[in-house]
Amino acid sequence: MANTLDPSAAAAVRIRLDLGYDGARFSGWARQPSRRTVQGTVEEALSRLLRLPEPPRLTVAGRTDAGVHARGQVAHFDVAAQTWAEVADGAVRRLVRLLPVDVRVHAASTVPYAFDARFSALWRRYSYRVCDDPPSMDPLCRHETLAYERPLDLTRMNAAASALVGEHDFAAYCRRRVGATTVRRLLRLDWARNPRSLAVATVVANAFCHNMVRALVGALLAVGDGRKPTAWPAEVLRKAARDPAVQVAPPHGLCLEEVRYPPDDELAAGLAGHYSITLPAVPS
Amino acid sequence: MANTLDPSAAAAVRIRLDLGYDGARFSGWARQPSRRTVQGTVEEALSRLLRLPEPPRLTVAGRTDAGVHARGQVAHFDVAAQTWAEVADGAVRRLVRLLPVDVRVHAASTVPYAFDARFSALWRRYSYRVCDDPPSMDPLCRHETLAYERPLDLTRMNAAASALVGEHDFAAYCRRRVGATTVRRLLRLDWARNPRSLAVATVVANAFCHNMVRALVGALLAVGDGRKPTAWPAEVLRKAARDPAVQVAPPHGLCLEEVRYPPDDELAAGLAGHYSITLPAVPS
Repeated sequence: MANTLDPSAAAAVRIRLDLGYDGARFSGWARQPSRRTVQGTVEEALSRLLRLPEPPRLTVAGRTDAGVHARGQVAHFDVAAQTWAEVADGAVRRLVRLLPVDVRVHAASTVPYAFDARFSALWRRYSYRVCDDPPSMDPLCRHETLAYERPLDLTRMNAAASALVGEHDFAAYCRRRVGATTVRRLLRLDWARNPRSLAVATVVANAFCHNMVRALVGALLAVGDGRKPTAWPAEVLRKAARDPAVQVAPPHGLCLEEVRYPPDDELAAGLAGHYSITLPAVPS
Repeated sequence: MANTLDPSAAAAVRIRLDLGYDGARFSGWARQPSRRTVQGTVEEALSRLLRLPEPPRLTVAGRTDAGVHARGQVAHFDVAAQTWAEVADGAVRRLVRLLPVDVRVHAASTVPYAFDARFSALWRRYSYRVCDDPPSMDPLCRHETLAYERPLDLTRMNAAASALVGEHDFAAYCRRRVGATTVRRLLRLDWARNPRSLAVATVVANAFCHNMVRALVGALLAVGDGRKPTAWPAEVLRKAARDPAVQVAPPHGLCLEEVRYPPDDELAAGLAGHYSITLPAVPS
């Protein structure tokens, strides 16, 4: 009968959720009193699934703002092992019915305790979609595409973007929070035309500050339409202070596409910053 | 001062419109009193663009039902040459502003009088999108994708579909109208997985009867999930009478993708049925 495991650890499991949502009708990820948020909505569904009086608390990879979408969001929560065992089979199918149509849990899986949706992440990948030829806009894509009045020169935008890649203090592109660092490692930032001629940015970093992707996109749009020179976004970066000339791009063009973690057997090795980072093969 | 041209013909031009729309909030294409329709909405915008007291009357390639989308719809109207000349430059950009966000005119071009959006069409191509794994559904695609509870066997569906291709009386798959033929030439009907694992039907015919694509899709879904044998859709076809066991698939999975016309210099040659038909290279 003796059990050498820590009884409290043996009694609980950590669950990873992979999920996607249409951010249009959510006041962002983070729970807020009397607002419709993704976190609040998913926690409420989990409490019904698990028949818990108090919803489990979710930890998330990317705290998306109001109106921002996700296809590859990741979150985790802890729950009593017995409680999870009773619902694990078919949990994802039941969550389809417990959740509204604009948020979907794609997978729910048991992970090691060393897995943390926020702190284990190696990098986050976002996309930002722009239609710079308004007559060609597909109305079916309008919920996730910024309509932009002026044509964009992607060569100029990519020249400007390449100067931003690397580890920098991104204070110029962040809403500053007291006491928090704004140093981030930007691993990739480039633009390409997709098969429907939309301009699509791929933005990858170890982590992002608040508003950072949308501020970077806003600066590059000003270069792409000719209002600002190619060197301007890097000049703004060097000032390390918020520049009012940088317009934060609207939220609905932005989507959290993917969060990458180390393999399970490397999770315990330390902080995410210590892992070697392999860039993803990004879908076209 | 003498003019050998027919004065009435010289005074008017025929305009082709290429357009797309999100069908969700429209009561279909065809104008109806006190309903929001695509035709009514576009005609109203044209009357403002052209400053005409009476809207021009549109002739359309595909009279889509309520909730059905279009990416490649085509319509035409006639207008006084002088009136068009005054607005032709920038007409498409002005229509972006005159139209609501769920319908977009992609192009407006002068065409020969022999061009008729409905009767000159060689074929229409529709797509129908199904997600048969509800947990994997991308909430951003829910407006144009049917969520289907049971997994679909596309091999069975394609075997059933191939028996429907060709010229047949599709009365079994149409809402019948008195005095109208239900003979159609189905040029292509097949299913494939797209990169996101959705099951996507490609349906091409010289023309379609009312409800025909959605009835064909409904019959094939019953084969795909195992409720009906592979031979069943062709048996239904042979009965040439509406079969209540065929469930018309919901409208929001359906999209009119493309309408193909002969080159301008062949338009005057005769009815569409007389042209040789080349199947399109269909985008994957």
